[in-house]
Amino acid sequence: MKKLINNPENVVQEMLDGMVLAHPEYIKKLDEFNVIVRKNSPVQGKVALVSGGGSGHEPAHGGYVGKGMLNAAVAGEVFTSPTPDQIYEAIKAVDGGAGVLLVVKNYTGDVMNFEMAKDMAEMDGISVDYVVVNDDVAVENSTYTAGRRGIAGTIFVHKIAGAKAETGASLTEVKVVAEKVIKNVRSMGMALTPCIVPAAGKANFTLAENEMEIGMGIHGEPGTHRETIKTADEIAEHLVNKILGDMPLNEGEEVAVMVNGLAGTPLMELYIVNRKVNQMLQAKGVKVYKTLVGEFMTSLEMAGCSVSILKLDDELKELLDAPADTPALKVL
Amino acid sequence: MKKLINNPENVVQEMLDGMVLAHPEYIKKLDEFNVIVRKNSPVQGKVALVSGGGSGHEPAHGGYVGKGMLNAAVAGEVFTSPTPDQIYEAIKAVDGGAGVLLVVKNYTGDVMNFEMAKDMAEMDGISVDYVVVNDDVAVENSTYTAGRRGIAGTIFVHKIAGAKAETGASLTEVKVVAEKVIKNVRSMGMALTPCIVPAAGKANFTLAENEMEIGMGIHGEPGTHRETIKTADEIAEHLVNKILGDMPLNEGEEVAVMVNGLAGTPLMELYIVNRKVNQMLQAKGVKVYKTLVGEFMTSLEMAGCSVSILKLDDELKELLDAPADTPALKVL
Repeated sequence: MKKLINNPENVVQEMLDGMVLAHPEYIKKLDEFNVIVRKNSPVQGKVALVSGGGSGHEPAHGGYVGKGMLNAAVAGEVFTSPTPDQIYEAIKAVDGGAGVLLVVKNYTGDVMNFEMAKDMAEMDGISVDYVVVNDDVAVENSTYTAGRRGIAGTIFVHKIAGAKAETGASLTEVKVVAEKVIKNVRSMGMALTPCIVPAAGKANFTLAENEMEIGMGIHGEPGTHRETIKTADEIAEHLVNKILGDMPLNEGEEVAVMVNGLAGTPLMELYIVNRKVNQMLQAKGVKVYKTLVGEFMTSLEMAGCSVSILKLDDELKELLDAPADTPALKVL
Repeated sequence: MKKLINNPENVVQEMLDGMVLAHPEYIKKLDEFNVIVRKNSPVQGKVALVSGGGSGHEPAHGGYVGKGMLNAAVAGEVFTSPTPDQIYEAIKAVDGGAGVLLVVKNYTGDVMNFEMAKDMAEMDGISVDYVVVNDDVAVENSTYTAGRRGIAGTIFVHKIAGAKAETGASLTEVKVVAEKVIKNVRSMGMALTPCIVPAAGKANFTLAENEMEIGMGIHGEPGTHRETIKTADEIAEHLVNKILGDMPLNEGEEVAVMVNGLAGTPLMELYIVNRKVNQMLQAKGVKVYKTLVGEFMTSLEMAGCSVSILKLDDELKELLDAPADTPALKVL
């Protein structure tokens, strides 16, 4: 297992320590809990956003804690849902009196535990609501999921709902715009290599030297099929066509694009994928309003990428462009 | 070869196309040349910064083109020095009348070609000067280098000299501060895996499943030694001790730290390394003023990391904190 780690049992704790030591101007960790919150929490009078999930997807979600995005991120063990008590502590730490919106990726354990935490916090008199992101068009139902999985499109929810919360909007208003993003975002990924959960010490599946998996989930859940590795252009075409098959786009519509690396794939390759994605959209007369290329929602050291497309209207454009200042995403 | 590419011969061209399509608000590409320049070039009356080198180190250097950092980045073929005519075109495109400073990493081919381009531009009446970054303490002389290699510490030169140029400083003043950074920055890296140059199609060396190389260069040049993989803490200790052996730090001194991923290593592991680096410096009474953790100077898909430490004074702190707005590095 070629990893820069110490004891495999301690990777989440040590990663969070290293993250807080790197970004003390943005974030702190709750004592006793693997929860990252904004340095100056709670923000009084504004809706707070809480997200999280299993670890191993960094910078998701701790890297998005900061002005204009999340107020707290709850870090479960690697590829494991955070516990209800962790989420409950996060909610209590960031509620500024205007309520808390939970942004949950659609995995059965995550949904269940975030719902339980919501119930616990509501018994304390905190207003809590939640949205479930299910942007992955690859498959219906999966290893850990009923319905579609939530993957990199979640970052658009963080950005846009976070910007809405900064305006002083109500919990209902923030939820409505988060749901608008969820309704308009689609993603699909593929993997060239598996990844190794540190505590397991070996890959949870194998791919032959000339093989890739299309539609792979961010925890190595099976995709739609395996085949011989194709060119970047062919792969991009397949992902984009699958997305557009689910969410048709008409000439003149505007979108935001994210080409997301799963961690093992270098930026050079992500830009080559982005070239084709952009060309395909342009050829359809769709305007690419904004593009993000990089590592936003990773899968340990897995090589591969996902493509996300978010259909925009004026409100979403304005919120996407609003300032954000977090360790992993900054908009000036 | 598990890569998201099309024809291996076209990776640089297609990567630059994808980069410009992703960031049209920041950059454009010169027609006919693999040169990325700021969208609104030249900036009249200010010193322009030009850097570059072989490709395969993205986001270096095209990702650092923008306000407060570079004016142009010249992209050679993968792991190959850019040609003098490319560099010459970059200089001409960004000179705004106040002269151009070239930031060159210390590889024999790079130094030779940047010097030739300087001579060509001077014959056109453009004031050109250059600095050579040699931050890698691992080895003296190497496969492509006389003296020490230039690696991730170069990004600190881009940031600080770029901020100085934005103040309207003269070419001499910008060069002086760039040289101050070079004098005060040290780096060292290690690799867990080799990488594959696309046109070659196979790794240029091999490492056993339990083996790592310490002091490895960003093109796979040999380091100081190979050994069985150690813990992240032991690796961080070795890198930091080697740096401090070359540049001692006293109690009360302030530094900036960069924990740089070579591309195949996930952010989780970089944060675990940063934890130990930070703890070691704190234990010596050295204040970590600013930390960068991420992928700043990569080596295709190589797994591994480098640590850079920059000793700061008030001038360097102020320039490090100055606003920057580029695709790969933003300071608000």
